[in-house]
Amino acid sequence: MPDCPFCDESIHKAVFAESKHCLAVYNRSPILPGHSMVIPRKHYHTVLELPDEIYSDMMHFMRTVSGGLVEAFGATGINWTLQEGEDAGQTVEHLHFHLIPRQPKDLPQPGDWYPRLRENEAIDSDKRPKLSDEEMKKKVEKLKPFFR
Amino acid sequence: MPDCPFCDESIHKAVFAESKHCLAVYNRSPILPGHSMVIPRKHYHTVLELPDEIYSDMMHFMRTVSGGLVEAFGATGINWTLQEGEDAGQTVEHLHFHLIPRQPKDLPQPGDWYPRLRENEAIDSDKRPKLSDEEMKKKVEKLKPFFR
Repeated sequence: MPDCPFCDESIHKAVFAESKHCLAVYNRSPILPGHSMVIPRKHYHTVLELPDEIYSDMMHFMRTVSGGLVEAFGATGINWTLQEGEDAGQTVEHLHFHLIPRQPKDLPQPGDWYPRLRENEAIDSDKRPKLSDEEMKKKVEKLKPFFR
Repeated sequence: MPDCPFCDESIHKAVFAESKHCLAVYNRSPILPGHSMVIPRKHYHTVLELPDEIYSDMMHFMRTVSGGLVEAFGATGINWTLQEGEDAGQTVEHLHFHLIPRQPKDLPQPGDWYPRLRENEAIDSDKRPKLSDEEMKKKVEKLKPFFR
């Protein structure tokens, strides 16, 4: 899909694991270390419109990615969130789950991840810090061995 | 598990759909109409510790429940969230996904669901309004036909 950041070739720089139909992508502006997304390779908008085979693959892969992130970052928990449709807060039209591994006291309150995610996703957030290509490469190379 | 609200027999008053291993439960203090949870019948703490068969059943059921809620409430979107582990904000130790169907402009900002959820889950929130048994029965009876 033209103009979709998750369909763009450049997304592959951020991919650290793959399944048949999906990619695990490190977030360019992580709200916490390990903040990643799972997306289908093809452009679908919502979970409800995914073909069964791709949905099953995606959910199986979600757990694999979660386990790998928890291991890689020595996390004690993880947040998943899906914003399905614009009225639910979806900002990029290509279906994506956020996965955010957590550490004890990584934020003032455990629930503070979501306000940060919203800030991160805000349309006017061009000024937010982004990983350089080199930083991204380091993150991806660190993660790949956990998914072999 | 003793003292677990999701293992207690009384949970069945709030159940509107069932799969082999899971239940769909209407929230006693919904933050928006349709706010529900999907839980495994047995007491597991996290997604990462679920046996494969139960995990597959749960994720398949999540989508069925989402589709039914969207249909029943005429929703245009839905939020899913998992708080896996106390450091990620999990307050009840029995694994549960929140599912919150959404409507255009149901909240000042689409992302305002999560602050509401946190308030709803706060340990000192005994004063929050709860559905009566009769109100719950109406909700459950309204929903059941969407899952036949």
